[in-house]
Amino acid sequence: MASRIPVPQLQGVTREEFLQRIYPQRKPVVLKGIDLGSCTSRWTVDYISQLGGTEEVKIHVSAVPQMDFISKNFVYRTLPFDKFVQRAAENKHKEFFISEDVADIRKQFPLLEGDIKIPEFFEKKQFFSSVFRISSAGLQLWTHYDVMDNFLIQVTGKKRVVLFSPRDAQYLYLSGTKSEVLNLDNPDLNKYPLFFKARRFECVLEAGDVLFIPALWFHNVISEEFGVGVNVFWKHLSSECYDKTDTYGNKDPTAASRAIQILDRALKTLDELPEEYRDFYARRMVLRIQDKAFSSNYE
Amino acid sequence: MASRIPVPQLQGVTREEFLQRIYPQRKPVVLKGIDLGSCTSRWTVDYISQLGGTEEVKIHVSAVPQMDFISKNFVYRTLPFDKFVQRAAENKHKEFFISEDVADIRKQFPLLEGDIKIPEFFEKKQFFSSVFRISSAGLQLWTHYDVMDNFLIQVTGKKRVVLFSPRDAQYLYLSGTKSEVLNLDNPDLNKYPLFFKARRFECVLEAGDVLFIPALWFHNVISEEFGVGVNVFWKHLSSECYDKTDTYGNKDPTAASRAIQILDRALKTLDELPEEYRDFYARRMVLRIQDKAFSSNYE
Repeated sequence: MASRIPVPQLQGVTREEFLQRIYPQRKPVVLKGIDLGSCTSRWTVDYISQLGGTEEVKIHVSAVPQMDFISKNFVYRTLPFDKFVQRAAENKHKEFFISEDVADIRKQFPLLEGDIKIPEFFEKKQFFSSVFRISSAGLQLWTHYDVMDNFLIQVTGKKRVVLFSPRDAQYLYLSGTKSEVLNLDNPDLNKYPLFFKARRFECVLEAGDVLFIPALWFHNVISEEFGVGVNVFWKHLSSECYDKTDTYGNKDPTAASRAIQILDRALKTLDELPEEYRDFYARRMVLRIQDKAFSSNYE
Repeated sequence: MASRIPVPQLQGVTREEFLQRIYPQRKPVVLKGIDLGSCTSRWTVDYISQLGGTEEVKIHVSAVPQMDFISKNFVYRTLPFDKFVQRAAENKHKEFFISEDVADIRKQFPLLEGDIKIPEFFEKKQFFSSVFRISSAGLQLWTHYDVMDNFLIQVTGKKRVVLFSPRDAQYLYLSGTKSEVLNLDNPDLNKYPLFFKARRFECVLEAGDVLFIPALWFHNVISEEFGVGVNVFWKHLSSECYDKTDTYGNKDPTAASRAIQILDRALKTLDELPEEYRDFYARRMVLRIQDKAFSSNYE
């Protein structure tokens, strides 16, 4: 198993420091001691279920803690927000809950909005969405990437987050935006022999911490305790780069989707050749991509 | 340095054995004891320069034995065939010569034609070209592949041939159809760190031997002695697969060229994204090619 690289933790970073020194690095970092407002003390289960209201929210419900997008061991449900919070917070549970609504919590939950100060480390026009991340203790969300930059704000509770660089995508056995390696802590190395090559970054988020997850960085989240979090997504690229139909922030930028569509046409052309030739020219195509589009400038 | 894998040698193979057991393997093999006609005893320097005539042929002339297509340490010349043969055969030489004319020696050299029996291990309609390979002792031709199947018939003299599988293209540092690693026997592993991974097949061709080089197999030839050889190229794929403008048998099949052109459009689309994103989606494209077009069925 590869060593675990701790995600750097920085205390009391200002907007200017973030924008000048941290953001351009495009690497995850845990920001500690950011003023998040009164939410860190106020947001108990009773308080948020009372003030959050009864509007229905979309959730995943799973019978086991490790959600599996391949065997689909979970279902999509809607529940009134207050009910959902109460059930997710139960100490003993037969089912595990996680919210997945995409919205702007400032509009969806106006009574809670005043309690949280979202770090304004980006321009207003870059804002994409803010989402409650409320989940049962033990629940593990599969490794995936988003195409937006992301602050995972841990208001209460505790999460373990494992991250992988976009550079290590080839070791993660991707299916779309998700990794097929579900059991990070005890992976099946017969099935996923290259997985051990992926450099594993790791941090534990305590109440009050903010994790910066740059776009394209893979992340896997275990809720070690019941907790309330808020995800804030914003655009790193200019607006026209993104897919206008993207509600969850996980559709690839339009230029990337187009490139992959065009590639599929190239592969279809190769299909005219026998296997031996197809394999050879596929290898030459890989060399061409590595030569023309791989970056050697960053790790 | 990787071990050297000897190319299998087979004695007295018939047309049927070749077509049924050897050809479908798509691997190089040295055929010994094939009846090549009287050329093996008749083709002395005097004889072929006399009967070959004075028609001009295209040649490479190099001041050093190892031809280098990067620094271009050779020039293209034309010489009358008889002059060329005499100069290439000189024991002491300041210049190294190798012929590169592409034609049908049966038409170009009618007086020599009757001396050689070209093994008819393919259909007449598959025939592409037959070419004299006459070169000075010591001359080394760079590692390259051709898109046609190939019999290298060693009539007189001795050659060492090193071959690499098309599967190992990624370790050969290609520039088009040629490998940039010129010095096979003492490669610069700082410059070409992956070269040692390429499995090296090797054989020495004695007078009378025929080497089958399947299309796409890389080969590097050193003439250990002055010698006369004949290369016979034929089409493995159906005629319409090949580039109609190809005279040397080294233009990629049209479907492959088209696929690479389409790929270039995909890469141009990726250029709209910043480096970090371009790198990531280029990696995803590589995974897609490996998944869809790489073969796992043959070594």
